[in-house]
Amino acid sequence: MPGTITIAAAQMGAIQKNDTRSSVAQRIQHQIEKAASRGAQLIVFPELCLTPFFPRWYYETLDEADQWFEDQWPPRGLEAALQKARELNIMVQISYAEKTPDQHRYNTASLIFSQGSAIMKYRKIHLPGHAEYIPERPLQHLEKRYFEIGDLGFPVERLNLKNVGEFNIGMLLCNDRRWPEAWRVLGLQEVDIVLIGYNTPVANLDVTHNQPPHLKVLHSNLSVQAGCYQNNCFGVSVAKAGVEDGHAMFGSSIIVNPFGEIIARSSTWNDELIIADCDLSLCQVNRSSTFNFEAHRRPEHYQRIVEQTGSIRPKNTIQA
Amino acid sequence: MPGTITIAAAQMGAIQKNDTRSSVAQRIQHQIEKAASRGAQLIVFPELCLTPFFPRWYYETLDEADQWFEDQWPPRGLEAALQKARELNIMVQISYAEKTPDQHRYNTASLIFSQGSAIMKYRKIHLPGHAEYIPERPLQHLEKRYFEIGDLGFPVERLNLKNVGEFNIGMLLCNDRRWPEAWRVLGLQEVDIVLIGYNTPVANLDVTHNQPPHLKVLHSNLSVQAGCYQNNCFGVSVAKAGVEDGHAMFGSSIIVNPFGEIIARSSTWNDELIIADCDLSLCQVNRSSTFNFEAHRRPEHYQRIVEQTGSIRPKNTIQA
Repeated sequence: MPGTITIAAAQMGAIQKNDTRSSVAQRIQHQIEKAASRGAQLIVFPELCLTPFFPRWYYETLDEADQWFEDQWPPRGLEAALQKARELNIMVQISYAEKTPDQHRYNTASLIFSQGSAIMKYRKIHLPGHAEYIPERPLQHLEKRYFEIGDLGFPVERLNLKNVGEFNIGMLLCNDRRWPEAWRVLGLQEVDIVLIGYNTPVANLDVTHNQPPHLKVLHSNLSVQAGCYQNNCFGVSVAKAGVEDGHAMFGSSIIVNPFGEIIARSSTWNDELIIADCDLSLCQVNRSSTFNFEAHRRPEHYQRIVEQTGSIRPKNTIQA
Repeated sequence: MPGTITIAAAQMGAIQKNDTRSSVAQRIQHQIEKAASRGAQLIVFPELCLTPFFPRWYYETLDEADQWFEDQWPPRGLEAALQKARELNIMVQISYAEKTPDQHRYNTASLIFSQGSAIMKYRKIHLPGHAEYIPERPLQHLEKRYFEIGDLGFPVERLNLKNVGEFNIGMLLCNDRRWPEAWRVLGLQEVDIVLIGYNTPVANLDVTHNQPPHLKVLHSNLSVQAGCYQNNCFGVSVAKAGVEDGHAMFGSSIIVNPFGEIIARSSTWNDELIIADCDLSLCQVNRSSTFNFEAHRRPEHYQRIVEQTGSIRPKNTIQA
């Protein structure tokens, strides 16, 4: 039975277009040092934590957008921060736009272990938004233009960490957290901790929407709390917050336990560290009862989930 | 585009072992009349709304438990209440233990249309609990003993209702609401309204549990709110409440909109009617954006959901 791991969620305030990489790397290193000094064994940074949320800007060619992509490991300018993390014995998750040697572009999260040089990688699967410029939209959301759909599935790795023991870890990015399928694929690998970075705007992006902005935090929390409860895991959901380029992102980073309770929460739109002791034995409580998947799941009735993509309404109508 | 349907959730207080069928039928008829007088076009009663929650009692043979099963349609004693509903032009969902002519036993919900004599039926798929008597448990939960797994899948029907228009309706029962797969199979049929009856105890049933009772309502709400938000539908979640046979059930019936917001909620553990106007056009808002399944779902990455039942943890361990 694993013990308790102390996890830090490092919410970040805005990163502006003209901020230097060195200033961003310093902010990251500062939070790594602070988290380690408070006993954290793992620190999690938000989605696209090295750049502004650039998919809100339209570039006609992918080449023009390449200024926001990382094509080396570790990403440019992060050597010192990651070296410091190794010295302090703390695992780090960073997320960034990745351009591979064979020219594929992904929205990527990497977890850097504190021992050795191994990393674990996830590439975002549920890319929101659209691929072409839409003039009617008050704000573009061009993730489907700049990124390919992740090609790694939803990986879970089993880690052995000193003073904690063995546990299973997985990752999601931003919009992935709204999709119960993504959580379940992790849950079916007995995930204990899910790391989630995001950049979510306060305002609605869509011209067809009529939802008030206050629902955005409800929806973010609801998705993570239900995902953790229904899959017997902790969730570490970390925002890029604040106002970038005139566009506000809501922050509200949270750490959630396997009962779906929020156990830590940010209260600013700036760089802010929240920390929680996560007792991994709690992941076992519902695994042997309510959410004993082997005893209670009925995959023979779930076929539609993989057999169709869109929704299909009933063909016939009954006069009721 | 469908209009607004007025829905009543008829929470019921306890039904005791010695209560007569006639007294239960009178309570049901009273709520039907009250709901219709307040403009409801649909009234929803809880799971096993004709009897106590008998799966907490152990019977050695199924024959002994048959006293709690209905083997005719409509269930014994309900003729007058359902006749009244037809006169008042209100649809009624009732739920009960069903014994079929060929001796199958199900935990069943039936939706009775206000026009004609057609009904729509659902048989519970996610049966919680266990099949054999467990002496260590403070309370038995023998649904897996008395019921077979539902054989109808998760049906959705398209109804045409006067003054409302065409919409899609589906049903879940109690523990089903905790399983995102069940919601998604309904969502993939473009369900607009999900009816959910339940009997959920205040106390934890399981000897291995160490969760405090206050989490039970959180978990019930979280499951229904996330299910509605992630599947673009209304949810009508109706409790049998109060103290039956010394065992308290928490009530907390809710009606939830497609944004995951609770728009009506009960406040007693007794027979109590809550009513909400449900504007079915709201189901379309996220269908064209965040939860446009055709645009955003990635079934090629969801295979585990149908290919395995229990969870399987990673084989290898990494020193992290």
